[in-house]
Amino acid sequence: MSESAERDARHKARMQRKKALIDEKIAQAQDEYGLLLVHSGNGKGKSSSAFGMVARALGHGIKVGVVQFIKGAASTGEETFFRRFPEEVSYHVMGEGFTWETQDRQRDIAKAQEAWAVARRLLGDESVGLVVLDELNIALKHGYLELDAVLADIEARPLLQHVVVTGRGALPGMIEAADTVTEMSLVKHAFKSGVKAQKGIEF
Amino acid sequence: MSESAERDARHKARMQRKKALIDEKIAQAQDEYGLLLVHSGNGKGKSSSAFGMVARALGHGIKVGVVQFIKGAASTGEETFFRRFPEEVSYHVMGEGFTWETQDRQRDIAKAQEAWAVARRLLGDESVGLVVLDELNIALKHGYLELDAVLADIEARPLLQHVVVTGRGALPGMIEAADTVTEMSLVKHAFKSGVKAQKGIEF
Repeated sequence: MSESAERDARHKARMQRKKALIDEKIAQAQDEYGLLLVHSGNGKGKSSSAFGMVARALGHGIKVGVVQFIKGAASTGEETFFRRFPEEVSYHVMGEGFTWETQDRQRDIAKAQEAWAVARRLLGDESVGLVVLDELNIALKHGYLELDAVLADIEARPLLQHVVVTGRGALPGMIEAADTVTEMSLVKHAFKSGVKAQKGIEF
Repeated sequence: MSESAERDARHKARMQRKKALIDEKIAQAQDEYGLLLVHSGNGKGKSSSAFGMVARALGHGIKVGVVQFIKGAASTGEETFFRRFPEEVSYHVMGEGFTWETQDRQRDIAKAQEAWAVARRLLGDESVGLVVLDELNIALKHGYLELDAVLADIEARPLLQHVVVTGRGALPGMIEAADTVTEMSLVKHAFKSGVKAQKGIEF
């Protein structure tokens, strides 16, 4: 083979490898599968962004499951609104009466596990396209639930099901497992300049 | 007056001033008025968080107005869903066919001003408790609208009306005017690891 023919062959082989790589990347990017999204940080918008996604999903005719791990942490407005659509949204407010670190830890763990049982049922339901696990990060941070067990159940969900986990202080393992992590940071807050919590905004 | 009586009188006066100050602070904190919230940053959740607030407001029986300054920037899912409630949500998608910097700037400015006319009408309507100005920051950043005129109209809104402005690159004057500013930052994104945009999540 002449030097020039050899160079052409090398070039062709390189281009073929390149094309194969690009084709593979395109194929990968076409893969549609359920995402695990985590909303963390100290700012506002972690839960409301999840509830905006609920609206988005409902607009696409996707059924939704919501488990609130801490009663009162999210807006009663959202609950009232989404309960209007019992056929489309399976809404569960759990975690009532957590005593946190202060009192009866065993009771709190039992309550959290009760909530997780509901979440697990939704994570096992193929007809549910989006599961919101509101404030789950808090229950994990307090050690009320085992991260490994929680992640295993999330991993085992139907292929196309999306999951949104909210709450400040996401554990490193949760961030590791997530496809998308958004940190909501507070830049400026009206409370600090003396405005009380407002219906429709804060709760 | 004896030295001790004088001291008592001084103490009493000081305590009265202190009480007046505290009362005033409590009164201030009780003030309920419409907030201006800004969602900015490069992360996800700026618009979906605003739409979560729409759900929250609707749950409280509050009427909502939405103006999307950039067609296609927000989810069609949210639009489809909230258009189910025409009595409760006044939904406007504007900004179709922006040419951005590239082509016909005068036409883009005219389109943005058309959108602002709709926003202005909502900002003048006492029956609307929450106005979402989705991607307004982008129109301002491109200079399609005058910040001062926009802020003047926002300032002049009904006392109890809340406004949410979304979009990356919020101008300093917008941040200055806001009661609450949340920065959504991207920590990790599935796209970067080769997952395509997904219905119900990204749009």
